[in-house]
Amino acid sequence: MPFARISLLKGKSPDYIRTLSDNVHRALVEAFDVPADDRFQIVEQLEPGALVYDRTYFSGRRSDDFVLIAITAGRPRSTAVKRQFYQRLAALLSEAPGLRPDDIMVVITTTERDGWSFSNGLAQLAVEEVA
Amino acid sequence: MPFARISLLKGKSPDYIRTLSDNVHRALVEAFDVPADDRFQIVEQLEPGALVYDRTYFSGRRSDDFVLIAITAGRPRSTAVKRQFYQRLAALLSEAPGLRPDDIMVVITTTERDGWSFSNGLAQLAVEEVA
Amino acid sequence: MPFARISLLKGKSPDYIRTLSDNVHRALVEAFDVPADDRFQIVEQLEPGALVYDRTYFSGRRSDDFVLIAITAGRPRSTAVKRQFYQRLAALLSEAPGLRPDDIMVVITTTERDGWSFSNGLAQLAVEEVA
Repeated sequence: MPFARISLLKGKSPDYIRTLSDNVHRALVEAFDVPADDRFQIVEQLEPGALVYDRTYFSGRRSDDFVLIAITAGRPRSTAVKRQFYQRLAALLSEAPGLRPDDIMVVITTTERDGWSFSNGLAQLAVEEVA
Repeated sequence: MPFARISLLKGKSPDYIRTLSDNVHRALVEAFDVPADDRFQIVEQLEPGALVYDRTYFSGRRSDDFVLIAITAGRPRSTAVKRQFYQRLAALLSEAPGLRPDDIMVVITTTERDGWSFSNGLAQLAVEEVA
Repeated sequence: MPFARISLLKGKSPDYIRTLSDNVHRALVEAFDVPADDRFQIVEQLEPGALVYDRTYFSGRRSDDFVLIAITAGRPRSTAVKRQFYQRLAALLSEAPGLRPDDIMVVITTTERDGWSFSNGLAQLAVEEVA
């Protein structure tokens, strides 16, 4: 159900990108109540000048490795679950590809269950309506 | 009012892209209550590795033709209207450019009417406020 | 707290892009109640054909300089504040880089305060929960 857009500066290896993508998804599965096969991501590598970010706003110091992870989620989660997800994500991305937690930013947007069609013209998550 | 971001893998012809764009808009007009000239889209063609998606989560099988259509809408629609839109979209994109319905995914995010400024520093859709 | 995605056609100079980025942020600071160092943006330059827009829907006439500014905000603002922001943005971008107000479109999406993690696995804006 979630869709994650992962934005960072150009110049990383395919291995780095794959590990980043894998661990963003792993954090969603382990701490955000997402099924393992519910994986939809775009990894956007940007030219310098196209990714603009303050180096110190709510961060010790952001480096050129800064990653902005924008998640569109299909149903609300509690603040407690969001906190767990942020922590798990920071821990996993520190391990691999070796990001500093100061460089990891997340924005979560929540939509409605009937706002998702995974395929075939169906609203697979919509709850039945009562007439 | 809607803004559609259409993401797919690189390698399609300009004709294919134009047809895809046209029929996404046509489905919005025919089934999502959108004026014909209210058309704003970005078509994002991605390198392999930059578009990550599960092949079978709520789909018979996604191919390399997979398209993710993220729509930002300016006012809520009922589940019934969303269902109609998904169905019409799948029907039209099957006809042209010939997408398999298994390859069509949609995510709708809803904003507020006063969240849109189409031009000239105005909030054209805002309902008048009572003081 | 806000994240701004600024989309336009390819072909502008780095100076033009920097001025555009600066003045989008300045309008947020001056009229949308955003701290000066709370700056996160992506500037997306697109090929012709990848940015599709109606030339006259709620606009005198859009040119090839059309800019679509999609803002993700962390808390609600009143219609009055949004109106002020649209006006200030149009005024500043007219001055530099010299955009015509007919070419400036904005879409604002609002998330929740606990939907933001700026770094370090923390939800810096979350209001404390009562158990």
